[in-house]
Amino acid sequence: MSVSILRTADTWWVQTADGATKIDTRAASTGELLADRAAIDAAAAGGEVVPMDGLRLISPVTTPCRVVAQMTNYASHVKDSGMEPNSTPLTFFRKASGSISGPFDDIVKPAHVKFLDYEVEIGLVIGRELPVGAVVTAATWTDYVAGLVVTNDVSARDIQLPKTQFYEAKSYPTFTPVGPALVLLDAGELGRFGELRLRLRVNGELRQDMRVAGDMIYSPLQALQGLARFQQLQPGDLVLTGTPVGTALSAPAKPVQIVSSLLPPAVKWKAFFKSQLGNAKYLHDGDVVEATVGTDDGAIDLGTQRTVVRYK
Amino acid sequence: MSVSILRTADTWWVQTADGATKIDTRAASTGELLADRAAIDAAAAGGEVVPMDGLRLISPVTTPCRVVAQMTNYASHVKDSGMEPNSTPLTFFRKASGSISGPFDDIVKPAHVKFLDYEVEIGLVIGRELPVGAVVTAATWTDYVAGLVVTNDVSARDIQLPKTQFYEAKSYPTFTPVGPALVLLDAGELGRFGELRLRLRVNGELRQDMRVAGDMIYSPLQALQGLARFQQLQPGDLVLTGTPVGTALSAPAKPVQIVSSLLPPAVKWKAFFKSQLGNAKYLHDGDVVEATVGTDDGAIDLGTQRTVVRYK
Repeated sequence: MSVSILRTADTWWVQTADGATKIDTRAASTGELLADRAAIDAAAAGGEVVPMDGLRLISPVTTPCRVVAQMTNYASHVKDSGMEPNSTPLTFFRKASGSISGPFDDIVKPAHVKFLDYEVEIGLVIGRELPVGAVVTAATWTDYVAGLVVTNDVSARDIQLPKTQFYEAKSYPTFTPVGPALVLLDAGELGRFGELRLRLRVNGELRQDMRVAGDMIYSPLQALQGLARFQQLQPGDLVLTGTPVGTALSAPAKPVQIVSSLLPPAVKWKAFFKSQLGNAKYLHDGDVVEATVGTDDGAIDLGTQRTVVRYK
Repeated sequence: MSVSILRTADTWWVQTADGATKIDTRAASTGELLADRAAIDAAAAGGEVVPMDGLRLISPVTTPCRVVAQMTNYASHVKDSGMEPNSTPLTFFRKASGSISGPFDDIVKPAHVKFLDYEVEIGLVIGRELPVGAVVTAATWTDYVAGLVVTNDVSARDIQLPKTQFYEAKSYPTFTPVGPALVLLDAGELGRFGELRLRLRVNGELRQDMRVAGDMIYSPLQALQGLARFQQLQPGDLVLTGTPVGTALSAPAKPVQIVSSLLPPAVKWKAFFKSQLGNAKYLHDGDVVEATVGTDDGAIDLGTQRTVVRYK
């Protein structure tokens, strides 16, 4: 059965029906906590319950850690970005783990960023070392995944697109809100991955709302297989699995793309971002972003993060 | 005056005129060694000298560490890649530090990779913490750089180009040979950065040969300023500063590019790599790659790494 792990500045908690129970552990990192399963189970079995409203939650994934993210991994988002789902290779990029922030922290826009966007994603939290060359199968991929978290892959579009490499645009501090909970799942529960629904609201307006199955291009199994061919992962590392349609950014129509592909890059991007000035969906100062992931039957519930956008 | 640091499996050394002197330190990582400057200085001042040929050198940059690399940063390489130097933004991507290997280790090509390429680069080894928001100036950039190393940013072109994100293609194990030496330089010596010449030979044939000044687009000062706006760096981290013209990969002529930009990506890349089959410059099994960096007057000499390509 799933166990929801919470973290505050000085300790770890297991979420209960009416609050949270402290975990008796000396773990300083998510990797260390996952190795102390006995302490987690003891807290899950019972203990003093404190009310949730007294806890100031921070990211249940500690830093430093590897943050690896899948590029365009939902067919709906790929099409909306002007690309073809059938010719989208399995692709990863890195985010600096310094971008990780808490589930109720502010998202801080650096002064030079103009087009701030959101991407709700399911994060895989690694629970077992994955060496390069590891053979991952449909029967074993769940061994490597300790649990799941809600994440937001916040993106500075005016940095991301002209630079082509996504690293900087998605690595500013507070650009990866994580949580509220790290939800530990067993193999049977992870088998329901396709039933998860991702939702993101801005000021209450539903912007993203998609079920994984039928839209996700590369499954977690394929992602882990792809990662194992070139890099190791360790317990506590975080893999973001892509976002569905509904971001502020949307590609221009095909004829516009073809014409603009003939322009020098600087001219092309100047024209593109001029056109985006009329797009009200980018994040504004004070916007409230709520992201949530779970199965429709509520059996798996990763919780809801609520972050407020602040312009520096 | 410059001090060349060497590393073997169990210890650290200072290179001397006729060998190397052991450093009396308990440092386990490059960051820790840089903090033990007294031990380095003591070894540099004198001690028992052992002959170089008895030492099996490994990378003087230890892992894990951040490996951040600049995209297309020499005008000659940018033009050769079919882009415009004037519209190339300052861009970074990450390499997995698991890709770091020793200066005389083999470069191992994974079985699925078809087009293996080389890129000699100067690596900046960070010596002082650079927090996000740090103000780096022409007078202070040298405070953050402990020294320089020769690196090779080995690249699987058939992975890199279709995926667009460079992370996987440049992160396979042995895809970042580092060394032979970490050469510690003072501010005056780092001020001669522009005079450094990069050279790379394959089986003795000179493929890359370029002086930094006049060709590098973004200087180390600009790179550190760019990094400080979004991510922290710590002592022992490695920043690769780009490669000049001469790689195996060279862009097709402009008219071909324009026509191919109208094709679906899968078709475009299939045609491109078919054309590359006739390009003999990609690395073959048994090829010997020698990379060296230094000033023409020999006052700054980062040494020569010699790696052999092995097909898995």
